[in-house]
Amino acid sequence: MTVNVLKALLEEKRLRSIHDVLSMYNPVDLAELLSELDDRELAMVFRILDKPKAAETFSYMDNDLRQELIKTFSSAEVKSLFEELFADDAADFLSDMPANFVTQLLENVDAETRKTINYLLQYPDDSVGSIMTVEFVELDPDMTVDSALEKIRRVGIDSETVYNCYAVKRHKLLGVVTVKDLLTHGREEPIAPLILGDYISIHTTDDREDAAKLFRKYGLISIPVVDTEGCIVGIVTFDDAIGVLTEETTEDMQKMAAMEANTEPYLKTPAWKHAKHRIVWLLVLMLSASITGAIISKYEAAFAAVPLLVSFIPMIMDTGGNCGSQSSTLIIRGLAVDELRFADTARIIWMELRVALLVGLGLAVADSAFIMLRYNDLRLAGVVSAAMLCTVVCAKVTGGLLPIAAKRLGLDPALMAAPLITTVVDTVAMFIYFTIASAVFAI
Amino acid sequence: MTVNVLKALLEEKRLRSIHDVLSMYNPVDLAELLSELDDRELAMVFRILDKPKAAETFSYMDNDLRQELIKTFSSAEVKSLFEELFADDAADFLSDMPANFVTQLLENVDAETRKTINYLLQYPDDSVGSIMTVEFVELDPDMTVDSALEKIRRVGIDSETVYNCYAVKRHKLLGVVTVKDLLTHGREEPIAPLILGDYISIHTTDDREDAAKLFRKYGLISIPVVDTEGCIVGIVTFDDAIGVLTEETTEDMQKMAAMEANTEPYLKTPAWKHAKHRIVWLLVLMLSASITGAIISKYEAAFAAVPLLVSFIPMIMDTGGNCGSQSSTLIIRGLAVDELRFADTARIIWMELRVALLVGLGLAVADSAFIMLRYNDLRLAGVVSAAMLCTVVCAKVTGGLLPIAAKRLGLDPALMAAPLITTVVDTVAMFIYFTIASAVFAI
Repeated sequence: MTVNVLKALLEEKRLRSIHDVLSMYNPVDLAELLSELDDRELAMVFRILDKPKAAETFSYMDNDLRQELIKTFSSAEVKSLFEELFADDAADFLSDMPANFVTQLLENVDAETRKTINYLLQYPDDSVGSIMTVEFVELDPDMTVDSALEKIRRVGIDSETVYNCYAVKRHKLLGVVTVKDLLTHGREEPIAPLILGDYISIHTTDDREDAAKLFRKYGLISIPVVDTEGCIVGIVTFDDAIGVLTEETTEDMQKMAAMEANTEPYLKTPAWKHAKHRIVWLLVLMLSASITGAIISKYEAAFAAVPLLVSFIPMIMDTGGNCGSQSSTLIIRGLAVDELRFADTARIIWMELRVALLVGLGLAVADSAFIMLRYNDLRLAGVVSAAMLCTVVCAKVTGGLLPIAAKRLGLDPALMAAPLITTVVDTVAMFIYFTIASAVFAI
Repeated sequence: MTVNVLKALLEEKRLRSIHDVLSMYNPVDLAELLSELDDRELAMVFRILDKPKAAETFSYMDNDLRQELIKTFSSAEVKSLFEELFADDAADFLSDMPANFVTQLLENVDAETRKTINYLLQYPDDSVGSIMTVEFVELDPDMTVDSALEKIRRVGIDSETVYNCYAVKRHKLLGVVTVKDLLTHGREEPIAPLILGDYISIHTTDDREDAAKLFRKYGLISIPVVDTEGCIVGIVTFDDAIGVLTEETTEDMQKMAAMEANTEPYLKTPAWKHAKHRIVWLLVLMLSASITGAIISKYEAAFAAVPLLVSFIPMIMDTGGNCGSQSSTLIIRGLAVDELRFADTARIIWMELRVALLVGLGLAVADSAFIMLRYNDLRLAGVVSAAMLCTVVCAKVTGGLLPIAAKRLGLDPALMAAPLITTVVDTVAMFIYFTIASAVFAI
């Protein structure tokens, strides 16, 4: 159904038909469709949907839209929405709202739900606590397969996933029981032998990115979250982990392009905010570039004598920057996906050195050929190619080294990317270039 | 257990103890541990493991290691390994091996397995077919919940996931039945009402990246793969999708840093291959930079008259490059995660224009202040800041426009990143800078 058809049906008050068609929709697609309605239409459609469908769709909607929508709700409607929402989705929605509005909304929900939501709201944004859910299936280790399945049948409908259940004794997590194991064993068998004791678990205060990486590494559906006493307090599910991995990668890319990390949608971020996220690094890098400028201005005599020297500045600077950013990108990404670590430093430098020599020689030869063909000036060809080779080696080693050094110092390796590397390499490159040029042209 | 302890136990032939300890390991961790053994030790340990554990561990091992290992296997051992492996893992392993070796290995396995593996091997690397598995649970739409659970109990152990089952009539896919629904409904109920008809499906020849994005968007555990007749031929599971998303992002980042995409591990790629992946773009960009050089050399008179002009070349070029790469990074990433689309072009340009004016004015003011303090030269300050402002505007608009134009032309937007943008912007920036300088200094 297109949004225009939906609007037309709303106009004609065909509420029954709208209900029937929208019931067939996946909540993700439904959220997308509803985002194109105006506030009044949205409020109407939302009330036509079945409560569970409405709540699930709500959890996929944009924050702005959700705020607008919930303002039109009666107390009873707020209560019913929060009863249907998974606690982590409710907390996720509330965490972006003004505190007084949150308090006001939570006045409408029952004490238990309020307690759970408040509990989840206390965790910082980048912690496991902020993405965990408290709706999971606990099993008693003395159960049989049949009684375990019976418990899942009873409480499963309110759990975010039933496929990993957790064997718990006095709140302590004993291990994981997969539904696959329950379903492929006899109903009278005890579940004790099915409890996997070597489970992966995480802590509420762990970094959510580290948790997400465990999902990628082990291919898990959910990971239990435990507190310092080893008691299970929640679970994180794979779909939240995929979201976290995507966001963290976006943030890495932004930092690598000399911006502050920002996961607000591009078109919904106001221009002044975009500018604010970008200008700090630009200023720092611009002023740093004046060092390169200062070096160049020291060699006024050189380019007064051989003006053509100036026209190779862009070529040497750009190539140096590109070489450095190639290396730093590979290392930053390698560190981010845990393929490289600090212990590899020597091997990385050795690799970059060899690559730099190969690439540098290739570029130097191409450069010489170009200069000989165009200017037929052997000395100039020699100067530019020698400077090129030295610049490439310096760029690749710097690009390989800085991200790993940053990691070691507890800084974010993503900061040591193209823009910073370029500025550093530029300075060195211009120094090398004019030193060689001065020597060769005996200026 | 550290690798040294394992080596010591092997030395003393404590095979029973090794078996007991390693049985407790997660196969991912086990693969990591075994990668530190030498070939002889690896072959020993692998034979100690239970067959299913061994096969699962095998599927997480490095390709080089797997090749070495399988060479030590007898025909019976090869047969047993391939019987335990999921067909997609087997095909994944074989797809990187020499064809004659594959034929030789497949001679050892039974006809059915060979047929399945050969079927999976036919799909190109970037297609859904290459990551799908053929081990899934089919249900008859006329079954009851109880008979469906009984079927899962029977065939589930050999399926990669049992949590989404597929209602199939004469090979045609009717819909998805989740185990959660089966478990939360009465055993005597028919499954027909539980069949979700509005399922997401993909085609064998679809791009695997598009499939992976569906997992991210809808938070699914598995997606059925259908052929042109709507018959189900396999499924893709979320853990494979996470792997694909990670690989595709790595490839995007490599392209954005002017390299050919390569997902071989960094340290296992030989230096000459690294060099090969990097040199092509470097050459192209280096020679393009000679255009900027040619522009500069046209203004010899300008920097002969005011030599200080040369020392601001790096500042203007670097800032232009950085501004362009900020914009292009945001747009490339926005396109990759489907947050931006071609229809947003006008809004993107309008946004970048406003951001560029804000950022450009800020930088111009900082620049003027810097030049006045350092050189107390009003004309120079005016020239540099005006050039800076124009460069920033040009860089941001170019950076915003090129990726989206590439997408429109069916090219990879990731190619329109920092390196290319920098080269384009450099040329324009130097032209602007010297044009303004010539006018102001009346050269």
